[in-house]
Amino acid sequence: MRALLYPETDTECLVECLAKGETMHALAQKLWPINRSISGAGLRQTLGILSEYLPGLKLFEIASGSKALDWIVPDEWVIKAAYIIDPSGNKICDISENNLHLVGYSEGVQAKLELEDLQQHLHSLPAQPDAIPYITSYYKRTWGFCLRHHQRIALEPGIYSVFIDAQHIKGSITLAEIVLPGESDKEIFFSTYCCHPSMANNELSGPCLALFLAQAIGKLPNRRYSYRFVFLPEMIGSNAYLQLRMAELQKNVIAGFNLSCIADSRTYSYLPSRAGNSLSDKAALHVLAHLDAHFKRYHWRDRGSDESNYCAPGVDLPVASLMRSKYGEFPEYHTSLDNLTDVVTPLGFAQSFAMCARIIDALELCCYPIAMVLGEPQLGTRGLYPSLSTKTSTQSVRTLLDLISYSDGTRDLIEIANECEVPVWTLYPLLETLVQEKILRREYR
Amino acid sequence: MRALLYPETDTECLVECLAKGETMHALAQKLWPINRSISGAGLRQTLGILSEYLPGLKLFEIASGSKALDWIVPDEWVIKAAYIIDPSGNKICDISENNLHLVGYSEGVQAKLELEDLQQHLHSLPAQPDAIPYITSYYKRTWGFCLRHHQRIALEPGIYSVFIDAQHIKGSITLAEIVLPGESDKEIFFSTYCCHPSMANNELSGPCLALFLAQAIGKLPNRRYSYRFVFLPEMIGSNAYLQLRMAELQKNVIAGFNLSCIADSRTYSYLPSRAGNSLSDKAALHVLAHLDAHFKRYHWRDRGSDESNYCAPGVDLPVASLMRSKYGEFPEYHTSLDNLTDVVTPLGFAQSFAMCARIIDALELCCYPIAMVLGEPQLGTRGLYPSLSTKTSTQSVRTLLDLISYSDGTRDLIEIANECEVPVWTLYPLLETLVQEKILRREYR
Amino acid sequence: MRALLYPETDTECLVECLAKGETMHALAQKLWPINRSISGAGLRQTLGILSEYLPGLKLFEIASGSKALDWIVPDEWVIKAAYIIDPSGNKICDISENNLHLVGYSEGVQAKLELEDLQQHLHSLPAQPDAIPYITSYYKRTWGFCLRHHQRIALEPGIYSVFIDAQHIKGSITLAEIVLPGESDKEIFFSTYCCHPSMANNELSGPCLALFLAQAIGKLPNRRYSYRFVFLPEMIGSNAYLQLRMAELQKNVIAGFNLSCIADSRTYSYLPSRAGNSLSDKAALHVLAHLDAHFKRYHWRDRGSDESNYCAPGVDLPVASLMRSKYGEFPEYHTSLDNLTDVVTPLGFAQSFAMCARIIDALELCCYPIAMVLGEPQLGTRGLYPSLSTKTSTQSVRTLLDLISYSDGTRDLIEIANECEVPVWTLYPLLETLVQEKILRREYR
Repeated sequence: MRALLYPETDTECLVECLAKGETMHALAQKLWPINRSISGAGLRQTLGILSEYLPGLKLFEIASGSKALDWIVPDEWVIKAAYIIDPSGNKICDISENNLHLVGYSEGVQAKLELEDLQQHLHSLPAQPDAIPYITSYYKRTWGFCLRHHQRIALEPGIYSVFIDAQHIKGSITLAEIVLPGESDKEIFFSTYCCHPSMANNELSGPCLALFLAQAIGKLPNRRYSYRFVFLPEMIGSNAYLQLRMAELQKNVIAGFNLSCIADSRTYSYLPSRAGNSLSDKAALHVLAHLDAHFKRYHWRDRGSDESNYCAPGVDLPVASLMRSKYGEFPEYHTSLDNLTDVVTPLGFAQSFAMCARIIDALELCCYPIAMVLGEPQLGTRGLYPSLSTKTSTQSVRTLLDLISYSDGTRDLIEIANECEVPVWTLYPLLETLVQEKILRREYR
Repeated sequence: MRALLYPETDTECLVECLAKGETMHALAQKLWPINRSISGAGLRQTLGILSEYLPGLKLFEIASGSKALDWIVPDEWVIKAAYIIDPSGNKICDISENNLHLVGYSEGVQAKLELEDLQQHLHSLPAQPDAIPYITSYYKRTWGFCLRHHQRIALEPGIYSVFIDAQHIKGSITLAEIVLPGESDKEIFFSTYCCHPSMANNELSGPCLALFLAQAIGKLPNRRYSYRFVFLPEMIGSNAYLQLRMAELQKNVIAGFNLSCIADSRTYSYLPSRAGNSLSDKAALHVLAHLDAHFKRYHWRDRGSDESNYCAPGVDLPVASLMRSKYGEFPEYHTSLDNLTDVVTPLGFAQSFAMCARIIDALELCCYPIAMVLGEPQLGTRGLYPSLSTKTSTQSVRTLLDLISYSDGTRDLIEIANECEVPVWTLYPLLETLVQEKILRREYR
Repeated sequence: MRALLYPETDTECLVECLAKGETMHALAQKLWPINRSISGAGLRQTLGILSEYLPGLKLFEIASGSKALDWIVPDEWVIKAAYIIDPSGNKICDISENNLHLVGYSEGVQAKLELEDLQQHLHSLPAQPDAIPYITSYYKRTWGFCLRHHQRIALEPGIYSVFIDAQHIKGSITLAEIVLPGESDKEIFFSTYCCHPSMANNELSGPCLALFLAQAIGKLPNRRYSYRFVFLPEMIGSNAYLQLRMAELQKNVIAGFNLSCIADSRTYSYLPSRAGNSLSDKAALHVLAHLDAHFKRYHWRDRGSDESNYCAPGVDLPVASLMRSKYGEFPEYHTSLDNLTDVVTPLGFAQSFAMCARIIDALELCCYPIAMVLGEPQLGTRGLYPSLSTKTSTQSVRTLLDLISYSDGTRDLIEIANECEVPVWTLYPLLETLVQEKILRREYR
């Protein structure tokens, strides 16, 4: 049988994943302080660190002004320092303390303002007074600072000195890509984004999980499919990547996933591909339903990340989004509260790794089982009846017979699992046994 | 953008329709007293008046004895007078007072009868003692009078003189037809019937509404489709018309509607085409669902008007029935209570006009929108993001993006509106904008 | 019109079936005492008696060691006597008293044992202390006795003499088959099994019902389809039969049914063919829904009889199972309580006969009705309107018109009945009338 990421029991699976969860969480902590944006040093540094963990991850630059489908790659943002001096001489809103303090892509400014005028450039959340909001302005030149509402209402009247050492230069955005070849040119595609500053679930979770999935897949002794992982700035990055690779992706990708907000330990969430009935959807919906019958299923119209580009008409890639708490739907979203202690945990990483591994397994091991005997086979003479009944009694025998019965070439293994109302991973060992006994054979299409 | 009947807001739409409602109601009042039947002077006079309002409406006669599919055009009924003289010498049941008093197609008679014998020829409704029932006997020769049950039980014993000046002669039935040519030979077909005497909803509502729809369509500066309106006696008329025009209709009609009982202001009712999934059904069901989520949806087996002929096997036209209170289902049906004061109102006409206009718009403007950009387009640089967000905030932007996303050539505009759960008329201006911006193009199939 | 088993009203139908029910019950009583198994004299004797009732039923033998798809025909079991002598000298568990006392396929033994050792070979049901359980061991050589739990707990300590005069010899299993040819080579297939000793519902009900269905079909003056009935030992018998006849069955069988546990008078039960949408399923589900809206519908995964072989991948016959209380699901199942007094009754036989006859009728009379007139036909001139309205008023006229309206060649008669929400047998006389009137014609595909 083709090697699996997780052929073991659920318990064994969780134990191994927990260790991986700690490792992913540690990487996220390392990446946390870096001031990322859709371009510039922070993004480049982040991708550089990822490539240390994943040799073969190739970085490349797309120059400002380049066409990215309907978009143009913007100027690169060079940000060195930003802070405000209050009337008492205290330095506040300093990005060296928390990089969310500065509105992303702010222009350079050096000015003295009355508090009243400064207020036009301040952002805070009255409903979440302890949170620094995350604000950007990529396509309209402006500047601003974000701060806790508690701090804002305590600001004293007087003259404030604002200092932002920022430049917008002809530069580039940075993308990273790795392809892990398999027996087939057909690809499973994973995309995640690296353009958010110090926030955990959105979005250190996606890159850290993707990295360790790629590592694990790279270690598989053999693979049916090729795997492609990309790490990009959101929206502009996926468009730039499609500008380069669209024909290749359209030719090879049979299933794909956007990973985002995927390491809190709340419920699983799913946003389907535009088609809704792709192989991605079939495999993921099966796995999620068996991991948590109450997982949250969104509609295509709820989309809001790179799946929008990958599934756009004419691009038509079968890319769905895997998440825990969906972007926009959890209270800490786009604030400084989205952190690595309360929101994103090693357990969250571990569960999500297991979930993705289950999906990859389902794709790798999916085949059309074909019956090689006519009529119901005699299990007793093959020693299948007792040996199985000792395990989980008659239920296993029943599932074994159902698997044989549905192996008529019209259903693949996931569809048979759905028909039998069991997780597909309970069928892997049964299928292997039946193939060895020449009762079934595997067919790939 | 192709001109619309009602591209305006719902409020503007209602204001304009209210005026039309008054006009239609006035026409119905004018037609009210005429003694119509499936043939004869009343039918001819009614169609003559309609042609004054709609130049181009062409009347033609089909001779008695002509084949009308499985039917034969019957003799023409010439009715001049009918009444009864009671034992006290009073004239009762006089059709010059109310033409429902005489059973339709009654044969001529001049006789004196005892009350007891006369009773065999009287019809009244004990449950609706104030109503004169509407009774006909087209295919079996007999005679009879209809009267209020109150009046009937007060009849004194004695000898009654019955007088009916009626003849059945070799004549003809009269049909009226208008075709309003459009850019395409493909037709939208409307049929309604003019064979009922003084009753309002059933059936002055259909002819008056159809007339003003035809007028409004005729004034459109351009039209994609051709429109055909026919005004007939029910059943025999549609069969006679099919005898003449079936091949033409089968070649051209892409959607069609029978209009009946369509100007009371109660709920909308819908009876589908036999196929149930024709373009008529798609457009009408969409419009009705958005006008009133609780509209009443009948089954094909509930049919009872000309749709039965138009959709018969081998004829197979996609004709559905649009109604308010369905024939047979409202208390005033087929009685003198079905009048122009309590049942049919200007408001009822206005709402039904708007409903039909919405359906016509949906058909005229339906196309396959096709995305011309790859990936999610950048709305900001095109000024679409702010300009739209000022209108109805983010909802419009979301609908705009959904419209683009679904413009992959597999769904037409109505289907996209269904997918987006919005009325198709909210998509018309968005589509127009996106076509002008070359983000989408329209395709017709 | 092609002759029917039951074209009459439900009442007439029941009266005739009740007489048949008595006859079937009498046959079951005659077969009751025979000690049947999957091979041997009891099976052979049973099939011999059936052939006396059904001339043309052909018995044939399949030798031990023969291939039966994935199985091998086992040795024949020759059982002459079996009993135990208790310490007081009483003869107990004597199969001449009840053949369930011996574990089926027990090997020969002559031995004296302490009660404690004997207990290893005894089987009883603590929860049903008055029932002798039915136990077999076909594929593992052993021996044992079955007895009432009440009797077992009263056994005195001491030495017991066990005597089983049994042999396993190279012999054969016996199958029986009859084909009743019709106009077409296309076949309706019925299978039932005869390998159970003295139990009534499971399984004297299937063979007795099948026999009388075959008799009735044989008397039909003409038949569209050919009918094949087989009487077999379960599992090994159907596999052996498929080994012989598979290609023929695959070529001809258009619908098929396994009859089992089919003469108690509890609810009807249905287990679909593997495909679930075969002609068998369509006809049977229609009939069952109209006989009892609350019939019990099982899933393919609940299977447990010969349908498992007939529908196996590669065999792919459209065979469903018709039952009353499903095997395994009724309290008397596989015990001496499954008898001809409390469980299986003449009424149960009668109802099941009627149910099967309704299904056969539905298959025989199913056709595609095609409209021969255009538009709604004029019923009045053909005398259809009044003649029908005298029967069941307007409902019949409505159904008549609906039948015509749906006769467009896309639906067969069962599908039209489903569309009209009436039992198909109410359409037979309407169809006949309309065919005679040349309004419809029948088409077979």
